[in-house]
Amino acid sequence: MQTKAVLTEKEMPTHWYNIQADLPEPLPPLRHPATKEPTRLPPPLFPEALNEQEFSKERWIEIPEELQDIYRTWRPTLLHRAYRLEKTLDTPARIFFKYEGTSQAGSHKPNTAVAQAYYNKKEGVKRLATETGAGQWGSALAMGCTFFGLECKVYMVKASYYQKPYRRVLMETWGAQVIPSPSEETEIGRKILKDDPDCAGSLGIAISEAVEDAFARDDTRYSLGSVLNHVLLHQTVIGLEAMKQLEKLDVYPDIIVGCIGGGSNFAGTFLPFVKDKIEGRKPDLRIICVEPQACPTVTKGLYAWDYGDVAGMAPIALMYTLGHGFVPPPLHAGGLRYHGMAPIICHLHKLGFVEARAEYQIPVFEAAVKFARSEGIVAAPEAAHAIKVVIDEALKCRESGEKKDILLALSGHGHFDLAAYDEFLSGRLQDYEYPRELVEKALADLPKVD
Amino acid sequence: MQTKAVLTEKEMPTHWYNIQADLPEPLPPLRHPATKEPTRLPPPLFPEALNEQEFSKERWIEIPEELQDIYRTWRPTLLHRAYRLEKTLDTPARIFFKYEGTSQAGSHKPNTAVAQAYYNKKEGVKRLATETGAGQWGSALAMGCTFFGLECKVYMVKASYYQKPYRRVLMETWGAQVIPSPSEETEIGRKILKDDPDCAGSLGIAISEAVEDAFARDDTRYSLGSVLNHVLLHQTVIGLEAMKQLEKLDVYPDIIVGCIGGGSNFAGTFLPFVKDKIEGRKPDLRIICVEPQACPTVTKGLYAWDYGDVAGMAPIALMYTLGHGFVPPPLHAGGLRYHGMAPIICHLHKLGFVEARAEYQIPVFEAAVKFARSEGIVAAPEAAHAIKVVIDEALKCRESGEKKDILLALSGHGHFDLAAYDEFLSGRLQDYEYPRELVEKALADLPKVD
Repeated sequence: MQTKAVLTEKEMPTHWYNIQADLPEPLPPLRHPATKEPTRLPPPLFPEALNEQEFSKERWIEIPEELQDIYRTWRPTLLHRAYRLEKTLDTPARIFFKYEGTSQAGSHKPNTAVAQAYYNKKEGVKRLATETGAGQWGSALAMGCTFFGLECKVYMVKASYYQKPYRRVLMETWGAQVIPSPSEETEIGRKILKDDPDCAGSLGIAISEAVEDAFARDDTRYSLGSVLNHVLLHQTVIGLEAMKQLEKLDVYPDIIVGCIGGGSNFAGTFLPFVKDKIEGRKPDLRIICVEPQACPTVTKGLYAWDYGDVAGMAPIALMYTLGHGFVPPPLHAGGLRYHGMAPIICHLHKLGFVEARAEYQIPVFEAAVKFARSEGIVAAPEAAHAIKVVIDEALKCRESGEKKDILLALSGHGHFDLAAYDEFLSGRLQDYEYPRELVEKALADLPKVD
Repeated sequence: MQTKAVLTEKEMPTHWYNIQADLPEPLPPLRHPATKEPTRLPPPLFPEALNEQEFSKERWIEIPEELQDIYRTWRPTLLHRAYRLEKTLDTPARIFFKYEGTSQAGSHKPNTAVAQAYYNKKEGVKRLATETGAGQWGSALAMGCTFFGLECKVYMVKASYYQKPYRRVLMETWGAQVIPSPSEETEIGRKILKDDPDCAGSLGIAISEAVEDAFARDDTRYSLGSVLNHVLLHQTVIGLEAMKQLEKLDVYPDIIVGCIGGGSNFAGTFLPFVKDKIEGRKPDLRIICVEPQACPTVTKGLYAWDYGDVAGMAPIALMYTLGHGFVPPPLHAGGLRYHGMAPIICHLHKLGFVEARAEYQIPVFEAAVKFARSEGIVAAPEAAHAIKVVIDEALKCRESGEKKDILLALSGHGHFDLAAYDEFLSGRLQDYEYPRELVEKALADLPKVD
């Protein structure tokens, strides 16, 4: 019984796939947060190469040799067939999953972190600043920076800094400097602490501090772990590998499922496949993104112009949004607590190529435990959202008798998230309804763009 | 640049390698704890198949098809070349490492856990009882049991149960019942708690409780995660894969290095190679096991008959020992805190085929951080002991100019051990001298065997 498809290093992708070459309608441009005019990424914040990638229409963008060497320290990742889950569900569907949890950081985030560190290094940058919530992104960037000899400064949401010390330690082990946000090191941090010395912080505040840090220092650039086009581009190594691995098994998926927070893991997985749907070769391919009921950006948000960050310093994008001022409930899937969504995913959803679904966290953890007891893998709570929908689709196949092939994007392991599993297993996990009033309030405050 | 060797599933070992077929002198038999006569493993504690494997002289023992299917959910594991570490050290040596951290449990332990669950299931056993310290073994067995539909009861050392709740949660996610030891559920537990209600527990006490549990119930057997011959046998999948992977790179190692607690990860790695040394084909092959200075069983212990457990209920083995009553200092490498050592390793050391070295934990963590910043992998503190010696050997090659090929057995990731990294990085980590007086006291109490 073959349970997984293996690629040799020689079969690894040498280029990233850029969906912008194949969109049926071009992506609406970003707008400047102040002037509201079309804009590039703020040039002092991002290196030139990433800015070029952000807007490139080239279909294939070469992965530099030196970076391929770094990818090879953990890639290609495996594509597994979930035989045991199929048996548990008694489904005729075949379930495949592409597992990113075997990277050194335990998630897909290093795919872009090492690329961003590489391009910054190449342009003479000495130091990167970023924000992190629970620490997935911060730890990936810390690893990327240590590989290329860059300093790394991470503004970590204060509540997580104290409640989840282990991610901080992981970043420090890779040599990063981690500081609880809001901090005394930035103007905005000092201002917030003056008003509220006990402020527990938020991702929005941490972003603002990291951006201010990068603006203030010539040797420093800013780095973002999701949402932007160049981030999704780097993540396409996942889907390109998966496609080649499925080909080895003579499989083309009927359904692709992934979770979305900023959207990078899922986009990285499905973008190389969606081209076949856009161009009519695979009209029946279904692409389903899964988000939390408590932060249902695509299923309940507006398709509107909104800031990428809470402070309104980041460019404005046309995307599904719950309003940049919206702060979601304290879900355990911290990576899915973002008010907006990658514009590429929103665009493809608007054009009808991507479906979206929202799930409650208790049934999500039920699905995760079923997966753990079938396949052994204890998944990150983010990825568990996708597992829930895969199980639902496989059970539909049991009803209908259809032998569908399902591809699950499994973004990472949950070894840092066991407190959440503990709450679930002991019956203490609570669920959150969609906070309609908070969203309506936040949506009343969108920027005006003609 | 090829950074790792990949095996397809078809290239996976179909048989375990049994060193007992090729030992130049046979292994001294186990002795019964009460009669001191040669004995098998206590029959009501272990299933027949494992008892057979324990004493078998067959060179190759087939891995049942159903078990190979389970192995395939995470095996074969990768063999990497540590290019970046070599560069950091500026050494002409080539460093390869066989990494077991990508299993669902994050270590090599599932290699035997799933095998033990399989054989117990086959003989109609319904439930396994075991002990665990920090939780590596308990979590692996919990996973093994969930794969084969067995109940799993884990007696977890009470101090760890409360200080390291995440490993407990991992076991519970896989469906195991975990209880702090000493507990009210066994006679020995009740006795200890009566004398000392605040007793923090020890591995020795937990073993005694698990053994009592298994003796007391017809449907239950006991399971041990290291030391015994059948455990080492199951772990030889590591070395067999590594050998094939190195062959693909046209490499035969000059030095093999691994950490030893009970010895199973390291033995699993080197046993398939040591045959070449025993039979004179590779007389210069060096095999180095690494232990903590604070628990230096092979480097400072006696080669003597001693009980495998603290309570004196387990069989007596001829091995290096610090005395079954010895309780080592609270090292972070919890997996290396055992008073004895796998008899197979001791025997091969006595015969001159294996060297041993003891290391302090502070330089061990220094080496681990260097490794993390070179290769990205944050290793388990146990494995870090081996990293320390690999770095030392590679630096010797820099001095001598020798281009040696070094194989490192890397038993697992350290994502559950970040508190230890935190202590090290913040300068709070303390070191422990060899506790000579405690050892001398413990060695005065060895069982008498003719």
